[in-house]
Amino acid sequence: MGKYAVGIDFGTLSCRAVVLDLETGAEAGSAEYVYPHGVMERRLPCGTVLGKDFALQDPRDYVEGLSESVKSAVSASGASASDIIGMGVDFTSSTVLALKKDGAPLCFDEKYKSRPHAYAKLWKHHGAAREADMFLKTAKERGERFLGYYGGGISPEWMLPKMLETFINDRDAYDETDVFAEGGDYITRLLTGEKNAGKAGVGFKSFYNDEDGYPSKEYFSAVYPGFGDTVLEKLPRVIKLPGEAAGYMNKEGSALTGLREGTPVASFVLDAHAALPASGAAGPGKMLLIMGTSTVQVISCEKNKLIPGISGIVKDGIVPGLYSIETGQSSTGDLYDWFTKNCVSGEYVSEAESRGISLHSLLTEKCSRLSPGASGILALDWWNGNRSVLQRAEMSGLMIGMTLTTAPEEMYRAALEATAFGSRIIFENLENGGVQASEIIASGGIPLKNPFLVQMYSDVFKRPISVSPVKQPGAFGSALYGAVAGGYFPSITEASDKLGARPVKTYYPNAENSKIYDLLFDEYVKLHDYFGRGGSEVMRRLREISADCAKGEK
Amino acid sequence: MGKYAVGIDFGTLSCRAVVLDLETGAEAGSAEYVYPHGVMERRLPCGTVLGKDFALQDPRDYVEGLSESVKSAVSASGASASDIIGMGVDFTSSTVLALKKDGAPLCFDEKYKSRPHAYAKLWKHHGAAREADMFLKTAKERGERFLGYYGGGISPEWMLPKMLETFINDRDAYDETDVFAEGGDYITRLLTGEKNAGKAGVGFKSFYNDEDGYPSKEYFSAVYPGFGDTVLEKLPRVIKLPGEAAGYMNKEGSALTGLREGTPVASFVLDAHAALPASGAAGPGKMLLIMGTSTVQVISCEKNKLIPGISGIVKDGIVPGLYSIETGQSSTGDLYDWFTKNCVSGEYVSEAESRGISLHSLLTEKCSRLSPGASGILALDWWNGNRSVLQRAEMSGLMIGMTLTTAPEEMYRAALEATAFGSRIIFENLENGGVQASEIIASGGIPLKNPFLVQMYSDVFKRPISVSPVKQPGAFGSALYGAVAGGYFPSITEASDKLGARPVKTYYPNAENSKIYDLLFDEYVKLHDYFGRGGSEVMRRLREISADCAKGEK
Repeated sequence: MGKYAVGIDFGTLSCRAVVLDLETGAEAGSAEYVYPHGVMERRLPCGTVLGKDFALQDPRDYVEGLSESVKSAVSASGASASDIIGMGVDFTSSTVLALKKDGAPLCFDEKYKSRPHAYAKLWKHHGAAREADMFLKTAKERGERFLGYYGGGISPEWMLPKMLETFINDRDAYDETDVFAEGGDYITRLLTGEKNAGKAGVGFKSFYNDEDGYPSKEYFSAVYPGFGDTVLEKLPRVIKLPGEAAGYMNKEGSALTGLREGTPVASFVLDAHAALPASGAAGPGKMLLIMGTSTVQVISCEKNKLIPGISGIVKDGIVPGLYSIETGQSSTGDLYDWFTKNCVSGEYVSEAESRGISLHSLLTEKCSRLSPGASGILALDWWNGNRSVLQRAEMSGLMIGMTLTTAPEEMYRAALEATAFGSRIIFENLENGGVQASEIIASGGIPLKNPFLVQMYSDVFKRPISVSPVKQPGAFGSALYGAVAGGYFPSITEASDKLGARPVKTYYPNAENSKIYDLLFDEYVKLHDYFGRGGSEVMRRLREISADCAKGEK
Repeated sequence: MGKYAVGIDFGTLSCRAVVLDLETGAEAGSAEYVYPHGVMERRLPCGTVLGKDFALQDPRDYVEGLSESVKSAVSASGASASDIIGMGVDFTSSTVLALKKDGAPLCFDEKYKSRPHAYAKLWKHHGAAREADMFLKTAKERGERFLGYYGGGISPEWMLPKMLETFINDRDAYDETDVFAEGGDYITRLLTGEKNAGKAGVGFKSFYNDEDGYPSKEYFSAVYPGFGDTVLEKLPRVIKLPGEAAGYMNKEGSALTGLREGTPVASFVLDAHAALPASGAAGPGKMLLIMGTSTVQVISCEKNKLIPGISGIVKDGIVPGLYSIETGQSSTGDLYDWFTKNCVSGEYVSEAESRGISLHSLLTEKCSRLSPGASGILALDWWNGNRSVLQRAEMSGLMIGMTLTTAPEEMYRAALEATAFGSRIIFENLENGGVQASEIIASGGIPLKNPFLVQMYSDVFKRPISVSPVKQPGAFGSALYGAVAGGYFPSITEASDKLGARPVKTYYPNAENSKIYDLLFDEYVKLHDYFGRGGSEVMRRLREISADCAKGEK
């Protein structure tokens, strides 16, 4: 019999497990579990109404999903538990769980079941925007060195703002929390009983770096009175590198998953990062664009580069020995979806129906017939804010150039182009910061399904772009980390080189198109800087007016 | 038997005739005739391909429409020809016809039937954009006084740019033309045999004013070599005031319409202007908002006011003795339509269908439930360019503030608000120029059908707005001019006071809403000035790129 590793990927709406055949690199079995509670944005199951920007999850879904999907995947693979030499876990991040001393989520307590801050705050929970501003302001005032590791910005999606939000709004819950854990660290603890943290979580989301550790008590106290007194006690202290075992499957973990006791469980990695080894891109200089609802760009390099506008740089964050840089765009597939749902005509709806194709396919087909630049429309892709390089969550969408003859496919195309231009800004910002990509690989369902889009990205970047064939990059990559933890490979780099998928196709830029995209990109950059860098504060003002009016509505 | 007057209104897609009972003010009969050739934008009937911004019409449609609709309306009214004491004509403007010596349109000639410039150039024909720029540039360089009468701008929709377009592109056609006539002047000539022009046409569209007449030969030659040599011979010289008879029905006119020979035919007035007496608003200080596919604002005042950004000011243009000012927004109903056609979801299409209501009704219903400001979205209403106060046809649409939760009704509402904000800018510009409106009346189908919209306008303006009940303001008003020409009323003011319709309803501003709209208006003004007054030239650039790419497509 062969050897296998299990990888499990906790996404926004479901988790997916795969069993990887370590000799062939083939997926021997897989399973998906959709979270019954999904994303709770309006109410808790008990009826408690949530704040406007809330996005919570019920950790029961993670536990059930872990058990169900791993068992199903293993069963589907035909592998026996004794041939499974390791398991790896990736998770959306920063998804924050308040855990009690015994490791159980606070919301499992009867006392806390109707209290929002006791639930898992999903990565896209935006209730801590004010708190993020407070962290940033104080860090700037004090000249905190850690800020340089995060491109000069702090996202409300990260661990510390979410913790402070709990501290301010539900002090009991905060006080009763033993550790605020990343979802992935909760899972490895559930499987192994070990209380530790994967390096990427603390590095990318909790202000931790090798030089200085966490920021000081004084800083946290300056952010909010009293916050510094206990915050450092509630952050994980034992940190594990990617591919290192967080621990070994204990009895409870074995019961949950059906895997044998003692199976090594790799420390948690961020969901997007697992795609890097999965696509054979663990080496330095390979830039991976992981395109899904949003886009994450990840690249490894050999030196520490504190570049403005990046989401973070972390030593050993993805590959031990290398620095990993993450940047991102807050909406990509989500944005395209929005257009198919809100910017179509009755005629197109009928046409798609009668031809039995999706609106995405119809719009892509129609917009692929247009020449670049012909529509005269340009968009800023900030429907879900701007992560890189502006780091301004309060940014919003903009579209300009519409006329009375503008058709839906022209707007749809402008949305595709806007995400490509946004990616190019990120790409050029890295280059200006001294990080060169020797290779660009697009990963995720979108580039696999949409050759037109990848060609456009290549034209906009004026660089070849390869497409990774991996359909479940998170689970696949996690399994590779599991294989490293289980000793099958000496390093994740080797695992990536051996089993990482080779690109299925490479797209080369069309010079004619690139010339026109250069013109449009110039205009994009001007709008980007005007609305994003202080020329106009209208986006922020509109959000403020909207927030005030929403209050008035209640 | 009573006395009657006939009014005929030549619109963009059809003409409508009414027979007005002069004792009761009631509409005794009416009829509409839809132009079989509609607006020719792609090809002539013979197959000749048209330029990108062309909008031509076949004058045969006017002749047929004149005959059919007047005959039908009179027949429906039961009035006998001997009781019809006058007829009035309004027409879209500047709709330009090249007429030969005998008064026939050039395109009726076999030789010219495949030549675009021999056809009627509809008001919205935009083929003369470059020519308009040339007129403007030269007028500024030479400090031409006439420019002040047009707010400092020149529209490609006007007579002279369209003439120069013909001069440059089809010299034969230009040379063979005896007079370039407004569509309305063509109609009165057809009915009476008289070659003259209504004051409003030459005043608002042909650079004519009482002080200086037309601009000089030298100016025209400076605009384009050789153009000054003959242009003044091809412009009308005999000018008639509104309500004055252009002439009396001759044999041919009588045969066409069934009206008796000798019936006085009032000189042509502009279509939108006829709405003023129709709504009882001929007196000074009454501002009429005529809201249709686009919006025209008209107000009369007692003194000459050369205000930047107005479309024109003309003495005796609408009411002899008063100065009339026109301003405009290039899209209103057209813009709302665009949203129902391009910014909906499949779900809404189904909902509207299953409820048997229009998408307009559905979107209005949904957006009327939102609080002002709550969506966080703002738009610039320039999908068809900006007429007042920027006078920049190359402006385009802008929408800002969208998020992934933005719904179609929020965008639709932003479009409604944008047209209201655009109107307020025009309104305040007039006030700053010393023209105060004592009363604001909204006219046209839109305000009658959409109380929510009029309330919004009132909230945005912070002024009461009355709604005129007149359903055919053009034809109604034309009939009043016909009655004046026929001697039934001594003046159009008296006709307006006696028979002009009283408002059906007055909307008063809601102070709470006004407060929020003031905040949004501040942001609108900032965007308006940034994109419209040179802060960013991105709209122009996008049009240029689009034009270049469209060329490349061929």
